[in-house]
Amino acid sequence: MPRLRAHSFSLSLDGYGAGPDQDLANPLGVRGPELMEWLFPTRVWQAMHGPADSGETGVDNAMAERGFAGIGAWILGRNMFGPVRGPWSDDAWKGWWGEEPPYHTPVFVLTHHPRASLTMAGGTVFHFVTEGIHAALEQARNAAGPLDVRVGGGVATVRQYLQAALIDELHLAVRPVLLGRGEPLFRDLDLPALGYACAECVPGERATHVTIRKQGR
Amino acid sequence: MPRLRAHSFSLSLDGYGAGPDQDLANPLGVRGPELMEWLFPTRVWQAMHGPADSGETGVDNAMAERGFAGIGAWILGRNMFGPVRGPWSDDAWKGWWGEEPPYHTPVFVLTHHPRASLTMAGGTVFHFVTEGIHAALEQARNAAGPLDVRVGGGVATVRQYLQAALIDELHLAVRPVLLGRGEPLFRDLDLPALGYACAECVPGERATHVTIRKQGR
Repeated sequence: MPRLRAHSFSLSLDGYGAGPDQDLANPLGVRGPELMEWLFPTRVWQAMHGPADSGETGVDNAMAERGFAGIGAWILGRNMFGPVRGPWSDDAWKGWWGEEPPYHTPVFVLTHHPRASLTMAGGTVFHFVTEGIHAALEQARNAAGPLDVRVGGGVATVRQYLQAALIDELHLAVRPVLLGRGEPLFRDLDLPALGYACAECVPGERATHVTIRKQGR
Repeated sequence: MPRLRAHSFSLSLDGYGAGPDQDLANPLGVRGPELMEWLFPTRVWQAMHGPADSGETGVDNAMAERGFAGIGAWILGRNMFGPVRGPWSDDAWKGWWGEEPPYHTPVFVLTHHPRASLTMAGGTVFHFVTEGIHAALEQARNAAGPLDVRVGGGVATVRQYLQAALIDELHLAVRPVLLGRGEPLFRDLDLPALGYACAECVPGERATHVTIRKQGR
């Protein structure tokens, strides 16, 4: 059965998946980009943002690469798609990624506000789902067919799918960074009680990569 | 100036320094010993509990070894010394470690209940401090002279010394284990605001070793 996977979820040593005070100027929160500093130098990231043959190979890159293998649809939380919080007053907003987003699959965006689907260059189609995480997953699974579905974030969305025990595999990139405040991943989430355990721990160049799996999947 | 150090503080991936439901049968809490599984096979640990030349060398061992270098006195929280919670009704209790504890220095035990000092074999002398963490540190510094003082734990004691920004160096051994519940280290502790930052991250055989330092020390 195709799986629901989350990858490259960057975490501070003290357990924050985003910094505090998230806003338009700081979509990842204050100091949030420090959590991603393992990803920026990788070939996977560089290829999305520049020439295909630039960027570092290595463990960090290999772990980032894994997250794109066998994915037939994505699910994104509202804030991952954009900073507009109210109803879709500004329908000109087409996500953070310009005309050709890096998904190349259907992408299901969780929101409270209906909006018509949005077809972008390169195969990405944004669909806006107002009926919650289960409906979004069902639509994404239908779209993905035999392939897996990837949850792209943010923290609240990943937490909701974990709390519902719907994520099969979660790859964390733990950075040796202290944030002190922000959006915690694990708080009040009893992952072993939900059936999760650590399956793998691999040191990378700029992060420690831990894979958490639902037991029996 | 001599420093206050904490070493080999074992932490689950989800941030717990001890498991839930700590009691006499589970002094580290349920599943707490899993946090320590990096330490048990090391030569440092084995030498304390058996023949001197048994146990593994390697990164885990080297990190555990560091914690004993240059230490002139220890501070322990009440539960680290023993399971007796009330007044010292049972003065026969001499700690978990038998007649020759592995400290070989003065050890200052935080407690609410006065008790006469206790001289053990091998140089360990337990002193019982009822005046709080600052008094214990002052007494430990006086005893250690030019050497450093080590906080041995448990979680609550390390948290108190961090909150007071008195710890200069904290070595964490992060285990790829999820506990789900237990005694969290970082909760409501804004370490960057207290002047702390990650200084080092080294992968070991069974844990990732992260050293946190007070800036400017």
